[in-house]
Amino acid sequence: MGKLGIDLHLDVGGGPRARSIEAALREAVTTGRLPAGTCLPGTRGLADDLGIARGTVVAAYAQLVAEGWLVSATGSGTRVADVTLPHAGAPHGPVRGVVDLRPGRPDLSLFPHGQWSAAVKRTLAAADAGSMDYGDPAGTRVLREAVATYVSRARGVRAEAGAVVITSGFTHALAVLSRALREAGAHTIATEDPGLAHHRQLIHGAGLRTAPLPVGPDGADPAGIPARAGAVLLTPAHQHPRGVVLSREARTAFLAWANERDGFVVEDDYDGEFRYDRHAVGALQALDPDRVVFAGSTSKALAPGLRLGWLVVPPRLRIPVLDALAATGASAGVPGQLALADLLDRGDYDRHVRRTRQLYRKRRTELATRLAELTDVPLDGVPAGLHALLPLASAREERRLVDAGLGAGLQLAGVHAAGYWHSARGGKAGLIVGYATPPRHAWRPALDALTGVLSGAAITPW
Amino acid sequence: MGKLGIDLHLDVGGGPRARSIEAALREAVTTGRLPAGTCLPGTRGLADDLGIARGTVVAAYAQLVAEGWLVSATGSGTRVADVTLPHAGAPHGPVRGVVDLRPGRPDLSLFPHGQWSAAVKRTLAAADAGSMDYGDPAGTRVLREAVATYVSRARGVRAEAGAVVITSGFTHALAVLSRALREAGAHTIATEDPGLAHHRQLIHGAGLRTAPLPVGPDGADPAGIPARAGAVLLTPAHQHPRGVVLSREARTAFLAWANERDGFVVEDDYDGEFRYDRHAVGALQALDPDRVVFAGSTSKALAPGLRLGWLVVPPRLRIPVLDALAATGASAGVPGQLALADLLDRGDYDRHVRRTRQLYRKRRTELATRLAELTDVPLDGVPAGLHALLPLASAREERRLVDAGLGAGLQLAGVHAAGYWHSARGGKAGLIVGYATPPRHAWRPALDALTGVLSGAAITPW
Repeated sequence: MGKLGIDLHLDVGGGPRARSIEAALREAVTTGRLPAGTCLPGTRGLADDLGIARGTVVAAYAQLVAEGWLVSATGSGTRVADVTLPHAGAPHGPVRGVVDLRPGRPDLSLFPHGQWSAAVKRTLAAADAGSMDYGDPAGTRVLREAVATYVSRARGVRAEAGAVVITSGFTHALAVLSRALREAGAHTIATEDPGLAHHRQLIHGAGLRTAPLPVGPDGADPAGIPARAGAVLLTPAHQHPRGVVLSREARTAFLAWANERDGFVVEDDYDGEFRYDRHAVGALQALDPDRVVFAGSTSKALAPGLRLGWLVVPPRLRIPVLDALAATGASAGVPGQLALADLLDRGDYDRHVRRTRQLYRKRRTELATRLAELTDVPLDGVPAGLHALLPLASAREERRLVDAGLGAGLQLAGVHAAGYWHSARGGKAGLIVGYATPPRHAWRPALDALTGVLSGAAITPW
Repeated sequence: MGKLGIDLHLDVGGGPRARSIEAALREAVTTGRLPAGTCLPGTRGLADDLGIARGTVVAAYAQLVAEGWLVSATGSGTRVADVTLPHAGAPHGPVRGVVDLRPGRPDLSLFPHGQWSAAVKRTLAAADAGSMDYGDPAGTRVLREAVATYVSRARGVRAEAGAVVITSGFTHALAVLSRALREAGAHTIATEDPGLAHHRQLIHGAGLRTAPLPVGPDGADPAGIPARAGAVLLTPAHQHPRGVVLSREARTAFLAWANERDGFVVEDDYDGEFRYDRHAVGALQALDPDRVVFAGSTSKALAPGLRLGWLVVPPRLRIPVLDALAATGASAGVPGQLALADLLDRGDYDRHVRRTRQLYRKRRTELATRLAELTDVPLDGVPAGLHALLPLASAREERRLVDAGLGAGLQLAGVHAAGYWHSARGGKAGLIVGYATPPRHAWRPALDALTGVLSGAAITPW
């Protein structure tokens, strides 16, 4: 296991020592100065370096493990946790000289800031003064109409403006929905296994339990719905992280379950616009708008930093969702809402999606071609989205590759290490390669470095 | 009591009748088509008009009363509740031909949209691509630094960027703080009585209780802190709605209480920039940054629609606040954050505050002058902020004046009717006149109309 000889440069100022070391470490992790996976020095060595008691360092490490910033595993020391989960709101910053290949974000150098600024200017100049008031917590009328039109056209959703609720991105939407489902009587939401740890955390934060729903080659398995589940959170168009599509049979079965058990399906359409080999699969929501909540956002098509998302809410959940939204006290700023409506209405949004889709498709093909030179095992899942899963033989191999990646200047995400498995013991291992993330100039070098890291890797189908 | 002959135009579509009437009424109220205070037709009359059973109408009214959209009082029929409370996120829209004199918002026609658009453009063009990533949930570094500098300079707050948390306006901040205080062990937050109903609702929504803290001529009374309170929510610079300033003695007493009982004070500095007769009173927070959470927003200085606010958080609450923030899943969009930082750093924000402060000071003086012609009773509170309280003899008189206001084309807010009192039985009555709200061309006609309405009113000091 390749430990990096990192130099901590901890800024330990005044105050009680343990607090200072803890604060300095937290700062180093949250700013990305210590990237995920970094091995920390042993407590004895660090204590010697700083001239303080070892117990003080032990206490600081323990506190940060408890907070989830660090993970400690027998035999492998203490390392920085992968808290920057894809489409999580977790803090992190770019690490100098390291290319980020973790999933969850588009190439941000392509964000059309000129178009965005022009849309802000145009819409604010034309808006009534009253539009800058507190306004409708469900979102401005003009954006709800634009979103309804867009998701109907692009994703086949059955939506009208009255059913659309604008949120501060998908994380806000999931926090709101969880609370609304709890108010509607749910105690447990079944979540895909593997699936995003951050989504489970948001559901727990709203006072609900989660239960694992196994994911196979046809997506989430409806036969595995836990008896106690009141709702199911799915990524039907492109399962995260496996990349598979929910089969027609499974779709029918989930809807049958929802109707029989008075349950709801939450459709997280996080990257539904990005299908490369054929026309995208339409939204599950269209099959049963009374039972499916459709959720989308601008985070993959434009940028996560916009913090703009939307829900299409079944009539029965509308009041609970508006109540839960009010309880968060949060809504998206009006200038951003008006600008997004403008980009949607003018077709600029679609054009940007088409342009970036071409680019990401090319990158995925290049990634697959390189891999084909190393192994017969294909990337798991369909050609779609902004990431691909590379299945590995073991968690040990996953750790080795993440470490080797750091040595080669790459930040890699492991299914196991990033907490995708519901059980703390984890499940199968793999790398989730976010090929959309690097800026254009960094993509080829990153691909070369990745090919080098993967040479001789124990790649095995799940 | 002047009932308006309103024409409901209820759009009762398909579905169970009661649900449709209920939905149509809710729509009419939330869009502002039926302004606060409007008397609804009797259930018998409406049932006849619609050709349905009276019981159906009764059920619909009852449901909307339960939800808080309508209020029903013996002898005065059913009326539209004033759910659009000042700095609430409640839905409402401008009512055509009616001038809004309710408190809580600045003159939105003065929103500097050209400056805002230019700041968005300038900052996005200069920003790193990485700044549009998920980023730090506590807010972008550049805005936290700009806010720390601004609140230190303008409000005397003791703040550094590390203690600042950016929120989606004050409602989000209060939801986050309530949850954080609950995690820190609080069960009850004492809130000023009278004080905003919407703030009590947000605290309840986070699973805490509220307890009333009486407000006198010197602001909230520290002798009245309920024994069970773990925190206190105050408006020290300009009590809402009374307009009084928290006395020096009371400030000291609240801080002594916080230190003795391990409690916290939340300082809602919603309009602290607007003091007209002297330099603004500095923030309470400066006296004890370990015990006071300082909260501010752009809602009064620029516009509520920006949904941008900030907290300056004591060290001990920092982790609970960040956890609670993550649980809401919401944060302000990056373009808005960067633009605000730019306006603060360039001094444009201060210049806009100074310009509007001149205008609102003038309006307050004109209001006071007109009132002096009608009564010897002065406006309650100091010359500051965006509203003034006019004390009345009774809730009946308050209702009469709100009705008369509607007849004269004015939307007025009553202390009693708008739910400012903690107890459902209410307390003293009054009008809270939001003189900042009307656009410039509407101010003089509104003042004339208000003078007419108040002629002969039973104005009595509290």
